[in-house]
Amino acid sequence: MDLCIVPIGVGVSVSRYVAACEGVLQDANLKTALHAYGTNIEGEWDEVMAAVKRCHEVVHEMGAPRIMTTAKFGTRTDREQHMEDKIRSVEEKMGQ
Amino acid sequence: MDLCIVPIGVGVSVSRYVAACEGVLQDANLKTALHAYGTNIEGEWDEVMAAVKRCHEVVHEMGAPRIMTTAKFGTRTDREQHMEDKIRSVEEKMGQ
Amino acid sequence: MDLCIVPIGVGVSVSRYVAACEGVLQDANLKTALHAYGTNIEGEWDEVMAAVKRCHEVVHEMGAPRIMTTAKFGTRTDREQHMEDKIRSVEEKMGQ
Amino acid sequence: MDLCIVPIGVGVSVSRYVAACEGVLQDANLKTALHAYGTNIEGEWDEVMAAVKRCHEVVHEMGAPRIMTTAKFGTRTDREQHMEDKIRSVEEKMGQ
Repeated sequence: MDLCIVPIGVGVSVSRYVAACEGVLQDANLKTALHAYGTNIEGEWDEVMAAVKRCHEVVHEMGAPRIMTTAKFGTRTDREQHMEDKIRSVEEKMGQ
Repeated sequence: MDLCIVPIGVGVSVSRYVAACEGVLQDANLKTALHAYGTNIEGEWDEVMAAVKRCHEVVHEMGAPRIMTTAKFGTRTDREQHMEDKIRSVEEKMGQ
Repeated sequence: MDLCIVPIGVGVSVSRYVAACEGVLQDANLKTALHAYGTNIEGEWDEVMAAVKRCHEVVHEMGAPRIMTTAKFGTRTDREQHMEDKIRSVEEKMGQ
Repeated sequence: MDLCIVPIGVGVSVSRYVAACEGVLQDANLKTALHAYGTNIEGEWDEVMAAVKRCHEVVHEMGAPRIMTTAKFGTRTDREQHMEDKIRSVEEKMGQ
């Protein structure tokens, strides 16, 4: 999953809320990689989704009245593939 | 939620898979509105997420080896707001 | 294209800004369809992208210090397909 | 911008197309960071959008009949902020 949580109604700076979500994902023992527009998450469906729900709860508890989240999530049945496999696969094909 | 499920590895035409997902959402008794780039869904978090998971299962069962889903989901604690409220609120402010 | 523009730092209610963007898209003579999580837009690449840029300019001029936009955009070379074709194609396959 | 280009109708493996897009972005001298679900891009609006258009052209030329792109793009007028600033800002607030 690629997760981007945007709290609305709390002003321009949202990094405090994003940091809290990173904490939630770490507490859930999910493999994550933060980037400038979200966080890559790797894990089983139910565990990932439970953590996303917890993120919304935490951000609301921190005072955000409204949250707008964008997520991409991929599943595949043909083979196992990890986050770093996807990046390596692209990098290997660059410059060819 | 706005949900857009894209099966990968099944050719150019994906409407058969999208139609199957619409069926899943209807079976779950969720309020939906289909548009050209996805489906708006209104409902409680757990019910919506369970239906999304079921969509992935169904699309894999139909033969798609890989699925790439994009979703936006909003929650708010300040007031109740339905899909049609959001559209009406924008329309009322147009032409002002 | 499916376009969702979220102004940040202007409070919880964003419909005024979305309405202004609808006006920009109409002024650009683009075919649009508003839904609860964004707006479907049909048109040529350069015209659509110019209108999206104008939306950002207008929303900043209205006072939003930060904007976070999510967009999906599809292009295809195999055949012509309009917004309503996509919806009809899904609807035809439902209940089969 | 966070850019995720998905060619449709070319099978399950899409890394060859993503690698070609990385080449386009590098040729455009844009600052980029590849992650497992897309690429972060930093630059001026017109330059970034021109590169995205070129990516679609290149992926179609490589044989993909259909492309589905998801992009997030942020602009702000209150202050200058780079990709690494966003990540650092979150990291500084973690563990507090």
